[in-house]
Amino acid sequence: MSNQFDVVVIGAGPGGYIAAIRAAQLGFKTACIDAGRNKAGDAPALGGTCLNVGCIPSKALLQSSENFHQAHSEFAEHGIDVTVNSFDANKMIERKDGIVTKLTGGIGFLFKKNKVESIHGLGSLKGQNGDVWQVEVDNQGEKSVVEAKHVIIATGSVPRPLPGADVDNQTILDNEGALNLTKVPAKLGLIGSGVIGLEMGSVWNRLGAEVTVLEAMPTFLANTDQQIAKEAFKVLTKEQGMNILLGVKINKVSNNGESVTVDYEVGGEAKSDTYDKLIVAIGRVPNTQGLNAEAVGLAKDERGFITVDADCRTNLPNVWAIGDVVRGPMLAHKASDEGVAVAERIAGQKPHLDFNTIPFVVYTHPEISWVGKTEEQLKADGVKYVKGTSGFAANGRALGLGQAQGTVKILKDAETDRVLGVHIIGPNASELIAEAVMAMEFKASAEDIGRIVHAHPTLSEVLHEAALATDKRALHG
Amino acid sequence: MSNQFDVVVIGAGPGGYIAAIRAAQLGFKTACIDAGRNKAGDAPALGGTCLNVGCIPSKALLQSSENFHQAHSEFAEHGIDVTVNSFDANKMIERKDGIVTKLTGGIGFLFKKNKVESIHGLGSLKGQNGDVWQVEVDNQGEKSVVEAKHVIIATGSVPRPLPGADVDNQTILDNEGALNLTKVPAKLGLIGSGVIGLEMGSVWNRLGAEVTVLEAMPTFLANTDQQIAKEAFKVLTKEQGMNILLGVKINKVSNNGESVTVDYEVGGEAKSDTYDKLIVAIGRVPNTQGLNAEAVGLAKDERGFITVDADCRTNLPNVWAIGDVVRGPMLAHKASDEGVAVAERIAGQKPHLDFNTIPFVVYTHPEISWVGKTEEQLKADGVKYVKGTSGFAANGRALGLGQAQGTVKILKDAETDRVLGVHIIGPNASELIAEAVMAMEFKASAEDIGRIVHAHPTLSEVLHEAALATDKRALHG
Repeated sequence: MSNQFDVVVIGAGPGGYIAAIRAAQLGFKTACIDAGRNKAGDAPALGGTCLNVGCIPSKALLQSSENFHQAHSEFAEHGIDVTVNSFDANKMIERKDGIVTKLTGGIGFLFKKNKVESIHGLGSLKGQNGDVWQVEVDNQGEKSVVEAKHVIIATGSVPRPLPGADVDNQTILDNEGALNLTKVPAKLGLIGSGVIGLEMGSVWNRLGAEVTVLEAMPTFLANTDQQIAKEAFKVLTKEQGMNILLGVKINKVSNNGESVTVDYEVGGEAKSDTYDKLIVAIGRVPNTQGLNAEAVGLAKDERGFITVDADCRTNLPNVWAIGDVVRGPMLAHKASDEGVAVAERIAGQKPHLDFNTIPFVVYTHPEISWVGKTEEQLKADGVKYVKGTSGFAANGRALGLGQAQGTVKILKDAETDRVLGVHIIGPNASELIAEAVMAMEFKASAEDIGRIVHAHPTLSEVLHEAALATDKRALHG
Repeated sequence: MSNQFDVVVIGAGPGGYIAAIRAAQLGFKTACIDAGRNKAGDAPALGGTCLNVGCIPSKALLQSSENFHQAHSEFAEHGIDVTVNSFDANKMIERKDGIVTKLTGGIGFLFKKNKVESIHGLGSLKGQNGDVWQVEVDNQGEKSVVEAKHVIIATGSVPRPLPGADVDNQTILDNEGALNLTKVPAKLGLIGSGVIGLEMGSVWNRLGAEVTVLEAMPTFLANTDQQIAKEAFKVLTKEQGMNILLGVKINKVSNNGESVTVDYEVGGEAKSDTYDKLIVAIGRVPNTQGLNAEAVGLAKDERGFITVDADCRTNLPNVWAIGDVVRGPMLAHKASDEGVAVAERIAGQKPHLDFNTIPFVVYTHPEISWVGKTEEQLKADGVKYVKGTSGFAANGRALGLGQAQGTVKILKDAETDRVLGVHIIGPNASELIAEAVMAMEFKASAEDIGRIVHAHPTLSEVLHEAALATDKRALHG
């Protein structure tokens, strides 16, 4: 193997592997360095957090737990009389692991197909020789060096640690441990009510755990449109039985081995709860450890993110950074699209990525998704807006599915009619948002959405109705 | 009640009731005449075929039967050990009836809210007095007359009869009877493999019936892109076990009371099969019976459709016709959007409905949907096109859902890159098509779809990949 490349990517998560493939497609000799290993630790595993211990495995567990819930609570109504004899969490985890292995293996296949050199080890910036960067690869102690004119850093993020609550992934868990429980805990504690917390809480809540979520913020899903967030809070707590406490101050976390005790304050009252397992999910921080950033003078901001311009250029020549390790939402698709854009910029193209049309999804049940501005942001920005909402309760497809809960909300400019934000809580919100993203990319007006034919009977008709509702001319509202 | 209106709509299906609501919203004094009655026949029921015996009830049964199938075939993989003790088709039908009642009742509510006068009975054109049309209402023999300047005919369609196979809805069934079986037939015959046939066949096949479909055409789903149609055929037959015979000539149908025998020829061979129930679904014909069309000189074409221009004007002044009773695809959403457009034209507006961006959906499993041109149409039109396909097999969300079957195919103009057609077989195809419709309405290029951020992990990423594949730059293919 030659150690000379045009482009070296550090990290093979959804930012890095996509950047590497796109660079190779554009004719660059490309290598991708990644230190990730599979769950057993006995082989390399590409795909980063997203594929191994993030987006993908969580969706597998969400589906399994949703099936379990349906068998218990929804089948009777359809005339299906079932007895759930047993639930084998091990088998659920095995299914999840199978999906992860298939997809991480798939990246290796894509690398071969696109002629990306896949290098296992921890990549770090060693220095520059003329205009060629030297990148050291540490493969479990065995060191080598590769060279390239361009380096793309895509090292992602790691869970934010909670001081005093060391993750052992036996009793105190991060996202990785939360995805590998092989027994449903009777009592599950969760610190943090972000996306990861809510998704993991949903999985184990559906499977029968008594779930308590302790959230420091006084507001639930603070970045989500608050009308949608309030509806979500009500569904998750009152209907699904999750106990979500806001404005919580954690005082002490004690790992008792077989259980964990959390002392906290809420509403001025001191409390103490003991859980069988505790998941800590208080956000994620950029992963720059091992990059040798300081030595080569790679600039970071005060929160530890690698400093980049709008085009993902760092302060070092021909060193780029993308994804969770830089500013902007920590989302796999944001990372991937930055990866494509950087590869194209290296090739002299001028791609543009609009942060305002990046969709967000929370895979609770019902799902939550949005794109563009929330009502709170528009108010803060002093924008004159009009809102239109429509519910799934009278939607024929939603009723057929037995999932007629939720709302679509469209916010538009009061003067130009342009759609400024679309916010959904409801069945398949993760898929319904794609139409809204497409509309916003084309600067659609609400009238455009209202005039475009929507297939009947589909859930997307609720989006159509919400658009009409912004003009007080909903046909079904 | 006054009998003077600005607009009278005949028929309260998805064309008529929407036309009436839109007309009322635009300030017209509006009445909607409908003769539909509920399943028991003891009360009026708005909503036409779609809500009562079409789109909506079929989706309810499809979900119930899908749940039944999952409990049997898919839960074990998730670690859920269930025993299906019994299946009560009556209960499934009751659930379906509940959804129908809720939605048909909802139209009554919407009529009240929008001040549409709802009149029960069979409406017919009586004649014109000056520029005022007189419409007779026959409510089970009790006759009255209403008057309006504008009449919108939205009388829909009825099942095409098969000579020699009289529907009794006991043994030989049309769509109505197929939706009300309270026992799973051991052997079910189906004449016709259109949308209704495939959906009903799917329901009863999943519930354990041995299903044979007899189709006269030599081509399966002849109007569907044939690559998608072939994939569908394979899934429905080889994997799901439906027996679909093409190029069948029906010779004789004998109703034996408790069973029905069909004599037919296929591939030059004479055959005879006996089924417990036979569903006849060989298409639908426009419903103009009782309109008094001939007496007032309302023109129809040779196939019985009311003749209209592109704006839904009939040959009679101020008489309009929309939906299944006129040319164009027999789709609820096409009818609704024609209804909106006609009401707006009466108000002097200039709406436009583009038939080329009307989506089609078949609710099999996986679902099938499309918009725009098929490959066969482009070939016939001599258009130079490029295609791109991507499968669900490597899509993380599809694998999580356990529904990783299917393909997205995008056809674009070889010179301009403009998207000409999008064809999907796969999970949630009914919802995924909405993004494609939006894209085509904005005359998107394949590059547009390829550049727009798609949330991860979602099924919509397969559409994104198919767009990239048209440029041979799929990131996952």
